[in-house]
Amino acid sequence: MKKILASLVACTGLLVSAQSTAADIELKLAHTWPKGFPIFGTSVDDYATMVSEMSDGRIEIQVDSRNKHKSAFGIFDFVKNGQYDIGQSASYYYGGKEPDALFFTTMPFGMTALEQYAWFHEGGGLELANKVFAKHNIEVMTGGNTTMQMGGWFRKEINSVDDLKGLKMRIPGFGGKVMAGVGAVPTNIPPGELYQALERGTIDALEWVGPSLDLRMGFHKIAPFYYTGWHEPSTELMYFFNKKKMDSLPQWARSVLLNAAKLTGFNMTVQSQHESAENWASIKAEYPNVVVKNFPAEVIEALRASNDALIESERARSPLAAEIVDSQASYLTKVRRWTEIGDWSYLANVAKTQ
Amino acid sequence: MKKILASLVACTGLLVSAQSTAADIELKLAHTWPKGFPIFGTSVDDYATMVSEMSDGRIEIQVDSRNKHKSAFGIFDFVKNGQYDIGQSASYYYGGKEPDALFFTTMPFGMTALEQYAWFHEGGGLELANKVFAKHNIEVMTGGNTTMQMGGWFRKEINSVDDLKGLKMRIPGFGGKVMAGVGAVPTNIPPGELYQALERGTIDALEWVGPSLDLRMGFHKIAPFYYTGWHEPSTELMYFFNKKKMDSLPQWARSVLLNAAKLTGFNMTVQSQHESAENWASIKAEYPNVVVKNFPAEVIEALRASNDALIESERARSPLAAEIVDSQASYLTKVRRWTEIGDWSYLANVAKTQ
Repeated sequence: MKKILASLVACTGLLVSAQSTAADIELKLAHTWPKGFPIFGTSVDDYATMVSEMSDGRIEIQVDSRNKHKSAFGIFDFVKNGQYDIGQSASYYYGGKEPDALFFTTMPFGMTALEQYAWFHEGGGLELANKVFAKHNIEVMTGGNTTMQMGGWFRKEINSVDDLKGLKMRIPGFGGKVMAGVGAVPTNIPPGELYQALERGTIDALEWVGPSLDLRMGFHKIAPFYYTGWHEPSTELMYFFNKKKMDSLPQWARSVLLNAAKLTGFNMTVQSQHESAENWASIKAEYPNVVVKNFPAEVIEALRASNDALIESERARSPLAAEIVDSQASYLTKVRRWTEIGDWSYLANVAKTQ
Repeated sequence: MKKILASLVACTGLLVSAQSTAADIELKLAHTWPKGFPIFGTSVDDYATMVSEMSDGRIEIQVDSRNKHKSAFGIFDFVKNGQYDIGQSASYYYGGKEPDALFFTTMPFGMTALEQYAWFHEGGGLELANKVFAKHNIEVMTGGNTTMQMGGWFRKEINSVDDLKGLKMRIPGFGGKVMAGVGAVPTNIPPGELYQALERGTIDALEWVGPSLDLRMGFHKIAPFYYTGWHEPSTELMYFFNKKKMDSLPQWARSVLLNAAKLTGFNMTVQSQHESAENWASIKAEYPNVVVKNFPAEVIEALRASNDALIESERARSPLAAEIVDSQASYLTKVRRWTEIGDWSYLANVAKTQ
């Protein structure tokens, strides 16, 4: 009888909802990117569609790009304060608000995409992220990976550590600090001005993402040396949820919102992989003189030493920072041994001869 | 007014459903594995839970393992005929029922997990799979990847193609045919008898999966040479849906069933990666004398030639088979170039020095 009464109450709700055609749950989402920004931005539109479809219209999400909310790096505060219920951005943009947010996007010399997914979802990484963000009334979920980011476009070859000294390079974040540690001069320049800055020699080099998003920027036309990656081996975007709001939702809605975020992230990772393959083929066809280079061992060792020193100072900052850094280091050691005998041996021994 | 009437009809449904507490949609699923089989089987239980949660109990799935339905390789027919609404298995088990089903699990010398996901979801692979399976009243979705499978456990080292001649090896499917092409004697033996067969010398070698599932089989105790992979670089399981049933469902239910399958597959892939890392560490700790070996270049070239000949005969079988094989070959070429400058360069140039 109780169930029948509950259903009648639900029916009243249904009648109201039928009249107003409103969803049961209406949410607002803000992301970092311009409207329609390829891969990073469009995947959020796909997220809203997936949530609406799977919930049969019971959850509707209004997506605001930065064209609307005007604050690319305001996502953390928007979600923390409840101005938006959901955000999509990159965790490491918020190191100024929460130092430990630095660790949950990608780390120089760190894990590759599938290695890092294993750490997030099976190795305790997501629990650590939620421990950090819960202090700010935020719950998080992985939101999509660029796969390997390239080391960047250089106008001149890098043959030694000396070639990095005084080199002006657009490379933000932790990678920039590592570069500064070996004598380079990291700068940040708005995306719209990057091409001109590189062309005019305001900067000598820059890193953007990888072929998936680099092609349309046109850097290959003016900087023929494309260096392989070291500083962002698996850049993972993240969904932020206002925790108080999430805790107020019924279990089915939480399940739809979190699972759809995770799946949207996986879809974005797969799309990044595809777009990198397609766009690299286009770059090579359009500019066959582009040369892919590895940094020399001497340079890699200097960058690693700079990175290790920075990590050690992060580690000393707090017990939680140390816990995160140690978790990543021990997981990397274990999972890399598997990568070595698995994918890597296959690529080196079997695929190389094709 | 129409909407209010529709809601009243819905309310009647709700009252009935409240009295019976039945789900709106009840489905039956059969999978290939024993009840509780790690990773492959448990992920199906997770699928049913995810679907129930996300649909707020409106879709309930009864999961039958092979302990119940008694037919590990009957999944294709079960779903085709509607005896079950959903199945989870591997596509290549059904090459006898549908020759083109062979191509949608993994191929020797083929794509790695993330490369193949890009082919499935962005490169037309899933459309081709659905073209093949639609002829059998089946709709499909990717269902989870083992990541790289190892080349197997050998009691003796393989130093030349001659060492393979007459070698008795448990290696089923396409990989077995490739092995036969170079003079080996492929056999299939039930999993429960494998350890004894290897110990007694009934077989000289066997492949199973990789560290994720090999550890519990104990092969490392009696066959110290663990060869790296070549024949199954990215074994993907698959969800099968009875197409007529799927077409009868409302869009929201289709969306939940397909998206949950895809996400469950991604979760299984991540879990496989994790378990391989963990279990490889255990194997090395327990049996430090286990040696990981690559097959010599001569052996790889002989296997590749055998594989190429088999693929060519598959290709000649039908226009659709040729379309699938060509799609895989051209996608592999494109995506592998990206893997080479992306993950592979990172592993070889940056990670190697750790």
